[in-house]
Amino acid sequence: MSGSPLRLGIAGLGTVGGGVVRLVLQQADLLAARCGRTVQVTAVSARDKNRDRGLDLSPYAWHDDPVALAGSDDIDVFVELIGGEDGPAKQAVEAAIAAGKDVVTANKALIAHHGTALAMAAESQGVALNFEAAVAGGIPIVKALREGLAGNRFSRIYGILNGTCNYILSAMRDSGGDFADILDEAQALGYAEADPAFDVDGVDAAHKLAILTSLAFGCPVNLDAVHIEGIRNVSAVDIEFATELGYRIKLLGIARLTDHGVEQRVHPCMVAESTAIAHVDGVFNAVVAEGDFVDRVVFEGRGAGEGPTASAVMGDVMDIARGIRLPAFSVAANGLKTIDAAPMDQHIGPYYVRLSVLDQAGVIADISAILRDLELSIGSLLQRGRDPGEPVTVVLITHESQEAALATAMTQIGKLDSVVEDPKIIRIESL
Amino acid sequence: MSGSPLRLGIAGLGTVGGGVVRLVLQQADLLAARCGRTVQVTAVSARDKNRDRGLDLSPYAWHDDPVALAGSDDIDVFVELIGGEDGPAKQAVEAAIAAGKDVVTANKALIAHHGTALAMAAESQGVALNFEAAVAGGIPIVKALREGLAGNRFSRIYGILNGTCNYILSAMRDSGGDFADILDEAQALGYAEADPAFDVDGVDAAHKLAILTSLAFGCPVNLDAVHIEGIRNVSAVDIEFATELGYRIKLLGIARLTDHGVEQRVHPCMVAESTAIAHVDGVFNAVVAEGDFVDRVVFEGRGAGEGPTASAVMGDVMDIARGIRLPAFSVAANGLKTIDAAPMDQHIGPYYVRLSVLDQAGVIADISAILRDLELSIGSLLQRGRDPGEPVTVVLITHESQEAALATAMTQIGKLDSVVEDPKIIRIESL
Repeated sequence: MSGSPLRLGIAGLGTVGGGVVRLVLQQADLLAARCGRTVQVTAVSARDKNRDRGLDLSPYAWHDDPVALAGSDDIDVFVELIGGEDGPAKQAVEAAIAAGKDVVTANKALIAHHGTALAMAAESQGVALNFEAAVAGGIPIVKALREGLAGNRFSRIYGILNGTCNYILSAMRDSGGDFADILDEAQALGYAEADPAFDVDGVDAAHKLAILTSLAFGCPVNLDAVHIEGIRNVSAVDIEFATELGYRIKLLGIARLTDHGVEQRVHPCMVAESTAIAHVDGVFNAVVAEGDFVDRVVFEGRGAGEGPTASAVMGDVMDIARGIRLPAFSVAANGLKTIDAAPMDQHIGPYYVRLSVLDQAGVIADISAILRDLELSIGSLLQRGRDPGEPVTVVLITHESQEAALATAMTQIGKLDSVVEDPKIIRIESL
Repeated sequence: MSGSPLRLGIAGLGTVGGGVVRLVLQQADLLAARCGRTVQVTAVSARDKNRDRGLDLSPYAWHDDPVALAGSDDIDVFVELIGGEDGPAKQAVEAAIAAGKDVVTANKALIAHHGTALAMAAESQGVALNFEAAVAGGIPIVKALREGLAGNRFSRIYGILNGTCNYILSAMRDSGGDFADILDEAQALGYAEADPAFDVDGVDAAHKLAILTSLAFGCPVNLDAVHIEGIRNVSAVDIEFATELGYRIKLLGIARLTDHGVEQRVHPCMVAESTAIAHVDGVFNAVVAEGDFVDRVVFEGRGAGEGPTASAVMGDVMDIARGIRLPAFSVAANGLKTIDAAPMDQHIGPYYVRLSVLDQAGVIADISAILRDLELSIGSLLQRGRDPGEPVTVVLITHESQEAALATAMTQIGKLDSVVEDPKIIRIESL
């Protein structure tokens, strides 16, 4: 055992914090063998000292205030598991960096909002700012982008970044149920929060995507530039059509270099049934990295939960124990270069369009004329009659189209007398 | 740019060596930004100086002898891309270590045969011995096991480790063709070597598996303990039955901790159609790691080729450029602990059994009696009549069975007069 023990101060003793404490106890021999030194928890902080967590906290110094823990002489590494983009989490991380402590955090909101500034501060102090657990739970994707695949210029990074949404979409497909019903089920099973907005509206995935974008493309974290759509509007009928057309609907986070800059977008996507990511179901996450030398690498695993998140936190801690301190976003924080944000109306890709039209002569001709005049071309068309006299559903798959032109077409089509509902579009991602 | 340039000496200028030279030239700015120092090739060695490689070698010092390159004052890192378990590759790597150079190699045969001894030598010299490119091409699985997932106790590591075999099995399934025909096609397409034995007999996968085993379980590399079966005996009819039963046949390398020690085995496996690995087709590789905290993580990507292998080599080089030098097998080489090799006859799992029997009364009763007496139980049974008077095919899926008992049963069943061919078995892996 060459080195001195590495002393952890853990702020936040919820599910993840408890998992980290348990991991350190349970794997003590393993951590020592793999790090060449012991890893131990020396101090903790949480809101309520007396809550029963199934953990004996008596060996650890207790701090009511995470900021006090962050600056404490008893610790080498401050492990921030409080959560939240501001408030105590941010104050404590800043205090830890100022005190020269290495920082490990699972806090995606914090890094998505303040990652660049925190990375600057950490680098000027010569300490680590590690956040593997902030993205895709147990999948070591941050390390893969920052190290293993770092010889590549990335062209696109995308993934299933929110397990709640993926669970709901998978269950909708399996059962044919509607969003609202499946959300209720997911809440009952503990796969969705009582207030599900943060997950189902795509905000959580956007946080993770903004971090991945910065890592992959070497630009400052720019959460404001992420185009965000959640899954509330995905309907059972669209899932049915997707299946019929050879697709699955997934909520993807996608960062892509285009001629107009970097696209960052979170929205429901149709992906071909033949792709790996189409088969990532339930609460699993997946991230795909596309690089110029490596081609495509797919990573899949649990995106949340005590064990996977503790595993990611410990990977970060072990790097520090082994003396590895790399720039948080792969390149030095002062070397991050702003890249233009590509506007969504410049987005180009195929689209799924679902229309509800009156079953009368000339409707398809009117729609086709609008698309033709905007130079949008159709790859395939499905028509489903319902009962006589009822509206007919028409589904179009476009060839590569520009979003602005497609939006114009949808407005014009929506105004046709024979079109009885607003057109519904879902982007198709070519993988 | 804080540090001095990192100088690479590259031995072996085949496909991979050429790819590494091209990567260093093409990504010079990227490598400098991500490493905080420039990375350059200063010297090279290959068998034939005059072969046209589409590369200008004039900027680099030339060495006819890789051993001389390894000890040269012009280099900081010796990149071994010669191949072969002994001979010049081994001599040059040993010379580089002795001269205090960091070593990066893509040579799985070398590491599978001599990895422990080389790791000891490297650690006593304080240099790196990195071999990401030796396993699963562009997939950063070595780094994931050694670092990102290092907080876990692994229970099983398995994967599709040979692209040639996976291509052949995928093509057999797609076309219904037999092994020999598809092998011919694969050779014509350049997916299989003129002498395919190293790939199709499972030796290449065994090399990679032995390396993964050592990394995951902290034991010395023990290639001799790997049970190896290739894919020559996989027949079109078995692939057909697999599909009917909801399985795919894959050549897997599997390392698993059991009550009898560590199992290391490479053999054709039936895997459930619902698993991620069942859908990894063609020349792609995949590795699955199962750890106690992270649960299951799946990695998928290209297992060979110029770009992916160069990407993996560069990941290793960049670690060195950034000052990261970890023990080759995660724990210190002198801390690797021998684990008993679990004998294959103690293997427990379900089995697929295919029999060709005469269509006469009592056959199934005879077979069932043999299985019952050995306490083997059957999960399902399929029977396929052919033409009248012709033998009938019977397929059994057993419940969890011990290999020794199953082998005894197969010997006894094979001796029945009504059984007209040797029973064919394929192990089923529960994933």
